Amino acid sequence: MSYIVSKAESVNRALDLVVPLQEPVKIHEDMRYSLLARGKRIRPLLCIAACELVGGEASVAMPAACAVEMLHTMSFIHDDLPCIDNDDLRRGKSTNHKVFGENVALLAGDALLPFAFEHLVSATSPVVSRVRLVRTVGELAKAVGVEGVAAGQVADISSEGFCFSIIIHLHKTAALLEASAVLGGIVGGGSDDETERLRQFARCVGLLFQVVEDILDVTISSQELGKTAGKDLVADKLTYPKIMGLEKSREFAEKLSRDAREQLLGFGSDQVAPLLALANYIANRQN
Amino acid sequence: MSYIVSKAESVNRALDLVVPLQEPVKIHEDMRYSLLARGKRIRPLLCIAACELVGGEASVAMPAACAVEMLHTMSFIHDDLPCIDNDDLRRGKSTNHKVFGENVALLAGDALLPFAFEHLVSATSPVVSRVRLVRTVGELAKAVGVEGVAAGQVADISSEGFCFSIIIHLHKTAALLEASAVLGGIVGGGSDDETERLRQFARCVGLLFQVVEDILDVTISSQELGKTAGKDLVADKLTYPKIMGLEKSREFAEKLSRDAREQLLGFGSDQVAPLLALANYIANRQN
Repeated sequence: MSYIVSKAESVNRALDLVVPLQEPVKIHEDMRYSLLARGKRIRPLLCIAACELVGGEASVAMPAACAVEMLHTMSFIHDDLPCIDNDDLRRGKSTNHKVFGENVALLAGDALLPFAFEHLVSATSPVVSRVRLVRTVGELAKAVGVEGVAAGQVADISSEGFCFSIIIHLHKTAALLEASAVLGGIVGGGSDDETERLRQFARCVGLLFQVVEDILDVTISSQELGKTAGKDLVADKLTYPKIMGLEKSREFAEKLSRDAREQLLGFGSDQVAPLLALANYIANRQN
Repeated sequence: MSYIVSKAESVNRALDLVVPLQEPVKIHEDMRYSLLARGKRIRPLLCIAACELVGGEASVAMPAACAVEMLHTMSFIHDDLPCIDNDDLRRGKSTNHKVFGENVALLAGDALLPFAFEHLVSATSPVVSRVRLVRTVGELAKAVGVEGVAAGQVADISSEGFCFSIIIHLHKTAALLEASAVLGGIVGGGSDDETERLRQFARCVGLLFQVVEDILDVTISSQELGKTAGKDLVADKLTYPKIMGLEKSREFAEKLSRDAREQLLGFGSDQVAPLLALANYIANRQN
């Protein structure tokens, strides 16, 4: 657990430096409000651990790690807006638009998205080859584009009361988690095979993350979860516990944990330690 | 004028191919609704003409041209939303959210933004060096980021009734126009000096565009303009005619035209023809 905590702290410090409170103040204040709220930093941690798996220094992956966290933040700022999920609570605080207004929240998201690319390119280009850098941009754009996060959200909208929940989860959570691991692999100097195994690992972890999220959503209160709990149930969206029951959901989570670990066979035990710590953290988290 | 028309047609055909009507259908339908609406295509034309100025083939600049048009489209879809400008009319049609709903409009914009980067990178990388490609990503991200379009919009929000109109225009319209020309210069193989002159040219043209827009806004009807006319007046925003009067605004437009042309001195007459045609088109447009 101390690996997770210390790396999450270094991500927090990096984000604080990368998005300082500067002119125009209002939009930076807004961006920082959500970006620096105490999140689990699973995506940046995955990115850094993936980089370390293939033998790269953690520092090489930090800009990519910050970029994925910016895109995740942008995604939930827009997701929480009244015209989408209309959520009041996120990361234990009022949602962005509740504090800054819908207009500023919308534009802060619009600013975070390109800034993620700008930061990735400017901060990574001194230490990673242009060929690898171009690949990271392509992977990241695809993850948050029409096939990734955005598509997940559109499916989300159209599916209230219908059966597309699994597809939503696959798209929405998985796309950026996969990209996080893949980016870490690319900037860390991983081979195509290693990067592909990182993608598979992240796919298992992404599903695992969602199953655990769904389980927590029906078993704990809003206060513990840091966002409005049970909301998916109220909105009549399908979740894993609703589809397969709570017990089967827990078994599924265990299977996904095993599948994820299998992707790491053949790597040295020092190299796999960070990713294993992360997978365990996701499997056992209580909020 | 025939250069403008034929190049605009080729941009329209390219956009139609790049964003086909595919799964998920709803979001693609939404994106195509605004992207393929008959716009002036000034940004993509500027990008292509800039590429031609420095000796590049028009086809090399087409992906960058499509990318800037996607980002422009994304920007006005979000700008028209009820929580920002609450506009009903754009490009002679109902605004995106009026047809598809706020939620889909929001997410279509969110999807267009990363897709612009994805398309730029995937379609340009076979024909342009990775070093130049990385530069285009950085320029484009900066243009639509917190210093560019998004900042312009936040200034827009805070300034109803105040004096920041000029700053808004500089940011909002200029950032993407500048990037369009700069991207064309980079992918066309231009030198740093040539690219810098293209940036200056675009800066003049960007101001020119806005001055002409403001003049048209007070002198013609909504039907001719294709968007709600006089809205800036109603909302008490400052425009060039309100600040300096209609006559001085026209003189300012003429001066900007001359300044733009000066940036092109020293290039061959064949090379400058496309950019000159575009500057003249912007100066003399009636809608």
